[in-house]
Amino acid sequence: MATFAVLGSGGWGTAIAVSLAQKAGNRVRLWCARSETCRVLRETRVNDRQLAGIPIPPTITITDDPGEATESADCWIAAVPTAFLRSTAIRWKPFARETTPVVSLTKGIETTTFRRPTEILEDVLGVTRLVAVSGPSHAEEVARGMPTSVVAASPDAGLAGWVQAHLGSERLRVYTNADLIGVELAGALKNVIGIAAGCCDGLKFGDNAKAAMLTRGLVEMTRFGVAHGADPATFAGLAGLGDLITTCFSPHGRNRRVGERLARGDTLADVQSGPQVAEGVYTAKSVYDRVTVMGLEVPIMAAVYQVLYTGKPAVGAVSELLSRRQRGENTVFG
Amino acid sequence: MATFAVLGSGGWGTAIAVSLAQKAGNRVRLWCARSETCRVLRETRVNDRQLAGIPIPPTITITDDPGEATESADCWIAAVPTAFLRSTAIRWKPFARETTPVVSLTKGIETTTFRRPTEILEDVLGVTRLVAVSGPSHAEEVARGMPTSVVAASPDAGLAGWVQAHLGSERLRVYTNADLIGVELAGALKNVIGIAAGCCDGLKFGDNAKAAMLTRGLVEMTRFGVAHGADPATFAGLAGLGDLITTCFSPHGRNRRVGERLARGDTLADVQSGPQVAEGVYTAKSVYDRVTVMGLEVPIMAAVYQVLYTGKPAVGAVSELLSRRQRGENTVFG
Repeated sequence: MATFAVLGSGGWGTAIAVSLAQKAGNRVRLWCARSETCRVLRETRVNDRQLAGIPIPPTITITDDPGEATESADCWIAAVPTAFLRSTAIRWKPFARETTPVVSLTKGIETTTFRRPTEILEDVLGVTRLVAVSGPSHAEEVARGMPTSVVAASPDAGLAGWVQAHLGSERLRVYTNADLIGVELAGALKNVIGIAAGCCDGLKFGDNAKAAMLTRGLVEMTRFGVAHGADPATFAGLAGLGDLITTCFSPHGRNRRVGERLARGDTLADVQSGPQVAEGVYTAKSVYDRVTVMGLEVPIMAAVYQVLYTGKPAVGAVSELLSRRQRGENTVFG
Repeated sequence: MATFAVLGSGGWGTAIAVSLAQKAGNRVRLWCARSETCRVLRETRVNDRQLAGIPIPPTITITDDPGEATESADCWIAAVPTAFLRSTAIRWKPFARETTPVVSLTKGIETTTFRRPTEILEDVLGVTRLVAVSGPSHAEEVARGMPTSVVAASPDAGLAGWVQAHLGSERLRVYTNADLIGVELAGALKNVIGIAAGCCDGLKFGDNAKAAMLTRGLVEMTRFGVAHGADPATFAGLAGLGDLITTCFSPHGRNRRVGERLARGDTLADVQSGPQVAEGVYTAKSVYDRVTVMGLEVPIMAAVYQVLYTGKPAVGAVSELLSRRQRGENTVFG
């Protein structure tokens, strides 16, 4: 089959490595950014913090050397949070080859540049064959072989098909999608709506309010995406609606939990104090900066920004959203 | 303000009556199909089975006489399950006036005729000013004044606006929508997907699988609706996605619970034995009959039919859905 360099040993990177290693003939290397993580994973063969109880098969090479990880790899899989993607990719740069496919698993938008993950990889690595894989995919469920469906997005249909054939399995279904921009924006924006959904939960506003929040949130995501060149159909798919559902309903989702904490009165400083910061906290700022310039109407995402960055109380922000002027329902874009 | 005849004293009818009675100046009559129900509601002033703990205000007239309920009413609100709508509406017929607006709260499709609720009302009552109100609206939350958003759908924009102005309140937001066909089909079809989502829950297939099921389910709903003249945008709105979310995630949803029971091995006879039958059980059959004739691809809805009516085990049906051939993601309609 093929040799894969999975670059990043967090929950999602480890899960994909485990899933790939289950296909006969695949060779899989898992690269850890930190030597200490590498040492622990080699010793224990388990990612105890993020994938407790799931063994990392002995066939997976674990290394902190990007040269060893990427040597004669047929495909790189980048699995690093957005905030660290550029600085981490610089460490991979010496080993990059222009024609090697690079798959991004990262969901977010670079705060200062508004670059999407595959754009950051293109910037740093000089590679051109880029694919984003996204969709409703809790790492733990993927690692356990529970049924999961994702999209592999690239304007290069042959490349997306290659990823589909090589990542896909009986349990991990991969659908191709040509809309790289839409898939990456959906993956970033859903985290902002996840914070809003968490606020609904924290305020105990009920199922009706939360369902309305998700519905209007997806409309905002689509509107924002279309204004940036995305295909609206992508937002009705796995990377849009599908991922939005898991983000808003999983009790463990980091972004949803941030919303719950904001509803209880926690501040931006409080929610940033943990070990893992939710991507939506940064995306909310990036999006707000953009919509202010572009004049887009995205009241839910703007409200999340205001709660996070201007200290507006969540209860007031959400109540305002839920009592906006009654008018015609508009779910049409473009 | 206005005088309302709420025809049907189940959970949703009672909740709308309570909500309407909270607006100053409204006169509200609540009609019970059964004299015994009427007697109990008059005595206790609470719908103990469906809205326990929520008092019915003394300003609401409770009656089992359709003449008393509808006398000089400005608007009728029909809140009767699909299976009983035609036979019940015949009892209202002597009091119908062609120009009085009739709002339907019913979600379903008549099995033998494939008529939508407003079509049944038109058939029986000879009225022409029809509106469907739908969306994510658990009756108990509406009755308790928790924030809720729904659509009022009619091709007559003035009429939809009248309903918006008179039903809407600070807590119950009403958005107008011109697509009566789409809103009614969405309200019926989401129950079938709710059964499929319940199967996922019962089989413990995980959050990833359930999110994928909802996403593809909404695609099927939209495809079916568009083939029947609906606007695809409706399915991205409150009556489509919004209501689908509550149906698939509420622990108390009847259709979702039917799916859970099917996953445990219960049969159609078992799930039909309770006091209240889930609408999706009938809709699944109606839809299957239609798609067979029309040649539409709706694999999830077909699988629900097969589990209910051909005794196919749920685990096999859902596993097949989740391991369909990998291909391009298609969320586009029409």
